[in-house]
Amino acid sequence: MKALLVVADGMADRPIKELDGKTPLEVARKPAIDFIAQSGICGIVDVISPGIPPGSDTGNLALLGYDPFKYYSGRGALEAIGWGLEVKKGDVCLRCNFATVDENLIVLDRRAGRISNEDASKLAESLQRVDLSESSVKFTFQNTIQHRAVLVLQGSNLSTAVSDSDPKKIGMKVLEVRPLEKSFEASFTAKILNELMQKFHNVLKNHEVNVDRINRGLPPANIVLFRGAGNIPCIPTLSEIYHVNAASIAATPLVRGVCKVAGMRVLNVEGATGTPQTNYLNKAKAAVQALSEDNALVFLHVKATDVASHDGDYMQKILIIEKIDNMLSYIIDHVNLEEVYIAITADHTTSCVTRNHEGDPVPLAIAGPYVRRDDVKEYNERSCAKGGLGRIKGINVMPTLMNLIGKAEKFGS
Amino acid sequence: MKALLVVADGMADRPIKELDGKTPLEVARKPAIDFIAQSGICGIVDVISPGIPPGSDTGNLALLGYDPFKYYSGRGALEAIGWGLEVKKGDVCLRCNFATVDENLIVLDRRAGRISNEDASKLAESLQRVDLSESSVKFTFQNTIQHRAVLVLQGSNLSTAVSDSDPKKIGMKVLEVRPLEKSFEASFTAKILNELMQKFHNVLKNHEVNVDRINRGLPPANIVLFRGAGNIPCIPTLSEIYHVNAASIAATPLVRGVCKVAGMRVLNVEGATGTPQTNYLNKAKAAVQALSEDNALVFLHVKATDVASHDGDYMQKILIIEKIDNMLSYIIDHVNLEEVYIAITADHTTSCVTRNHEGDPVPLAIAGPYVRRDDVKEYNERSCAKGGLGRIKGINVMPTLMNLIGKAEKFGS
Repeated sequence: MKALLVVADGMADRPIKELDGKTPLEVARKPAIDFIAQSGICGIVDVISPGIPPGSDTGNLALLGYDPFKYYSGRGALEAIGWGLEVKKGDVCLRCNFATVDENLIVLDRRAGRISNEDASKLAESLQRVDLSESSVKFTFQNTIQHRAVLVLQGSNLSTAVSDSDPKKIGMKVLEVRPLEKSFEASFTAKILNELMQKFHNVLKNHEVNVDRINRGLPPANIVLFRGAGNIPCIPTLSEIYHVNAASIAATPLVRGVCKVAGMRVLNVEGATGTPQTNYLNKAKAAVQALSEDNALVFLHVKATDVASHDGDYMQKILIIEKIDNMLSYIIDHVNLEEVYIAITADHTTSCVTRNHEGDPVPLAIAGPYVRRDDVKEYNERSCAKGGLGRIKGINVMPTLMNLIGKAEKFGS
Repeated sequence: MKALLVVADGMADRPIKELDGKTPLEVARKPAIDFIAQSGICGIVDVISPGIPPGSDTGNLALLGYDPFKYYSGRGALEAIGWGLEVKKGDVCLRCNFATVDENLIVLDRRAGRISNEDASKLAESLQRVDLSESSVKFTFQNTIQHRAVLVLQGSNLSTAVSDSDPKKIGMKVLEVRPLEKSFEASFTAKILNELMQKFHNVLKNHEVNVDRINRGLPPANIVLFRGAGNIPCIPTLSEIYHVNAASIAATPLVRGVCKVAGMRVLNVEGATGTPQTNYLNKAKAAVQALSEDNALVFLHVKATDVASHDGDYMQKILIIEKIDNMLSYIIDHVNLEEVYIAITADHTTSCVTRNHEGDPVPLAIAGPYVRRDDVKEYNERSCAKGGLGRIKGINVMPTLMNLIGKAEKFGS
């Protein structure tokens, strides 16, 4: 027995007036997803806890079975790992922005005009060559998408108890990084980050890429802002907990990071971009392939539903749900339903009205040979609330699946 | 967006034979409350935990979002605060009874014949003039309703780890207060309480009010019994947690105390008495007014349903539910339902048969612009169990409301 867990990011929603009080899931035509609900058991899930809006990091950690209140240690490390950087225990990771400041270090643009990947890559290469005065500490700086970047500090005596240099608002001066506790490690780490900030600024302010940007009328990326210092979460892998091999299909660096710390094999899929234009069919094929291999669990994540929700574009969200349905249709047609449990849920509700993550529960359906099939006929927020699973928590989903495929360990004797 | 949370004390019940196996909520005519259920989302709530009968203190703490297992520190302080006494951190509060003892301190009547407020006030005035041998400790003694009173000790070196002097049964001797742990503070506090008990007894036994009571054939209130030493709970306010202003409409001292420690503005309403004769319309008007001001949350508590239940008077309970319905009807007519979420629940089940608080879950309905409306048509214990909220806990109610009005903080990023 094997399990496929499909997570559509932010797919759950609230009733929308322009849709006659229905949600995008209630409007979308989605025969394959409804088939999972009809032939399976349904319920609703508080991914974190009733009323608490999950982040994408905490939400996916919870759906993989990890209590985020226990294991979550910041987004920085997850994103760095997801981007392919090697992060070890004790390394301190920070999320970074290329930004634009004036001569007094007042922030003029927190995203340096959403600098291109090309420009950011050239700048990052130069920054990686900076020498730190403390030879015991090494750093890795890497740009990711547009203005975004990650910084990993490696060495002994490092701490995550340091403040951000990012003032988070334009018109404010870049902040000095301060220790957040009275320890040598925190002071030491703050000193290194302040040194890096200054040395990065010195490299950037006269860098030829920025001279060229100014000539082109673009804001120079003349500083790097640091925030969210965090460690790699110290969690047992899925293989350690359930003795299964697991594979993950996800494009978003943050979700790839979550899957990596959970010890999953993170697959690369041609055309999977984390955008509404992602290649749904290739993701489906990759899932079918992974299920045909030695993976008892395959995790398939689609980001596009969340993107549409944050844009408030409920019509696009409906279309994306229909594309996800096509993806599921391919999978249903190409796996042995006597052998594979298919579950579909969301990591949180994202409202097309508020354009934010919300704390409303998400629907869950699980189809497979031995589920206690209920009488829910459609997959959506309201119908699943009447299902046989009732209302469970995010951290209950993975044990529920592992139980169905015979991989849950008995407690007691 | 704003939220009104209406809590009818002990409104939930069990089926009653004389009502053809229905509950008072199932018999009462209550179109306004049913409108909230019909246009909203419903569920049932374990205010504390399944099967655990909540107190009015722990129940309302839970409904305001505070885990009572973590935050509850005795009824004494909540009642003292609710009665308007100023209680600071470290003060030790006790619930007190005026009682009747014989010359050997054997309790003859734990309530001194349910002494009148007038007699009790005169006695309390005299007791407040007692001098303590320890000048570092000050006390405030205040009668509340009938035989009930509160005692607040203020000073350094005080402890709540002291036993009760109240033997809780007639025919038993008044107990010496003992320290419950080996600490200077516990011994010191016990000593002060024993001194107060003795000095109060000396003042009371020859007090003219008691001479007069004996002449009238009434039991003299010649002792004060102490119980339930507690501190003010050290809890973050609703404003600290959710960044909202909150107002409360409640007459019962205990509930007012809970609301005060939660940092709510506790309003005074003309004619609101905490009895079945309370002025329901004035409470409705106060709620409408509070919602029109800068309060994102208004908490409206009605005690009368619980009073009728403790009397076993289910016919009166039905009438009170219908009066609460009128109150809701006024509110529904006078607030903008596009802006205000209205929730109605109870702090516990009180059975008209057992006349006690019971651990059965209570119904909850929430109406408002973006709830996932379900198909529940009536508000009662059984119909709400079929609603879209499923079965949640008391501490989930406040995050659920705060999430709907956009005040819940995301966990993760």
